[in-house]
Amino acid sequence: MAGKIPLEDAYNTRDRDGVRLVDELERIGYLGSEPCVPRPMRAYLELHIEQGPLLEEEGLPLGVVEGIVAIAWSRITLHGVQDHAGPTPMRLRHDALVAAAEIVTGVRGIARHIAGDMVATVGRLDLTPNIPNAIPGRVVLSVDFRDPQEANLDRALAMLDHVVRVAIRQEGVRAEVEHYWRVPRTPFDPEVVGVVEAAAASLGCGHRRIISGAGHDAQYMAAICPTGMIFVPSRGGRSHCEEEFTALDDIEHGANALLLACARLAGAE
Amino acid sequence: MAGKIPLEDAYNTRDRDGVRLVDELERIGYLGSEPCVPRPMRAYLELHIEQGPLLEEEGLPLGVVEGIVAIAWSRITLHGVQDHAGPTPMRLRHDALVAAAEIVTGVRGIARHIAGDMVATVGRLDLTPNIPNAIPGRVVLSVDFRDPQEANLDRALAMLDHVVRVAIRQEGVRAEVEHYWRVPRTPFDPEVVGVVEAAAASLGCGHRRIISGAGHDAQYMAAICPTGMIFVPSRGGRSHCEEEFTALDDIEHGANALLLACARLAGAE
Repeated sequence: MAGKIPLEDAYNTRDRDGVRLVDELERIGYLGSEPCVPRPMRAYLELHIEQGPLLEEEGLPLGVVEGIVAIAWSRITLHGVQDHAGPTPMRLRHDALVAAAEIVTGVRGIARHIAGDMVATVGRLDLTPNIPNAIPGRVVLSVDFRDPQEANLDRALAMLDHVVRVAIRQEGVRAEVEHYWRVPRTPFDPEVVGVVEAAAASLGCGHRRIISGAGHDAQYMAAICPTGMIFVPSRGGRSHCEEEFTALDDIEHGANALLLACARLAGAE
Repeated sequence: MAGKIPLEDAYNTRDRDGVRLVDELERIGYLGSEPCVPRPMRAYLELHIEQGPLLEEEGLPLGVVEGIVAIAWSRITLHGVQDHAGPTPMRLRHDALVAAAEIVTGVRGIARHIAGDMVATVGRLDLTPNIPNAIPGRVVLSVDFRDPQEANLDRALAMLDHVVRVAIRQEGVRAEVEHYWRVPRTPFDPEVVGVVEAAAASLGCGHRRIISGAGHDAQYMAAICPTGMIFVPSRGGRSHCEEEFTALDDIEHGANALLLACARLAGAE
């Protein structure tokens, strides 16, 4: 709808098992006939859990989201030499996992070096052949960098290239580095952000301005209409796991702020 | 047959998909009725590829195997805190993969420190949930140590415990360490080794004494009868991969040495 991803590309996206999105939509009866195009919209508002620790740490029920951090995803494929773990002397090894370990440590070092709000994560790492008695011949790993400032992402990616060069030279392996996805920082609409802040204030709720570290639908909607978001606390900052939890009171505050902000944007008050 | 693994344990071994060995043997018609017990045996001889680089490097067609290195396998399970890669500040992270990377680097360091013939490998590493935008909550990894000297394995395992302690303290994660399998050094029978050496010499083949870095059936047979092995070169030392290759001439030398050694042990010459 926001024109960021061509419809055909979205349809042809495949999961790890090779299943296409469009085929699954059809199978479960969700492939509608309505064209996916922008319509006249006054504003877009999204209520979400923070997925981070700040609101809980500061004892505030509401976050007034100013925007979404810039995100860069890279994929690094390391090609070593697969070999038997027994009879292959250390001096002859080209172990893709040893190089990968240097990169994981290096990615942590990049976040430490840039500091501020930078976060850096290796979340996925796949070995081949992945058995105890074989030297890993191939490793594919993901790198996720996020920062409110674009310039910090540029620095992080340049540092990553350097970390990879050093790691592969040391171990005598080969690397393919793909910086395959980048989302620029998304600032939200100042008027909408102001309305959310006023709604929180008139509810008498403690609140603070906050930058979202996670991507959201709002990131795309911001391209086609005035957009804002409201955060409620996540216990322990946990999300994407079974421990994800937000207290019912906080959910109520969030829903009230959403209602009030919508009413104001709609000119009802 | 050698009494090292109880028959019921062997039958009940399961692969990654949970399939039991005994069920598969039955399915493919290989579950025989003959009791698996030792019989009177003059000697056991095994012809195998070296799976290492030494014979090729020295231009020798035959290896007279003196025994098999001692082997120790460990499994390390790291429990961190799974969390969203975006909104979780670096200061709050307990990333199981960052600790695992320190251990992979540490295992390489142990081999470097002990030096000599020690080899050390992390061949298997599994992340949970293994997606780009989640901090890894759990990592399971394997460690394989091998050395001709038992004392070096003891040192390596003690150093591994230390490496794990440091890595988990640094990242604030928890570890379970299981040293779950150990095979002592297997020396082969001096008479059989001598007969193999004499066979290589009378064939006019270049040869050397060598220790096997890989486990073989001979390791178990050595417990119940005089045992020896013959190695032929592996191109590039490669094995357990599609590049595994031994020249036909070398295979012929190996087969001739096997025949001659068998004939001598049988008293035919």
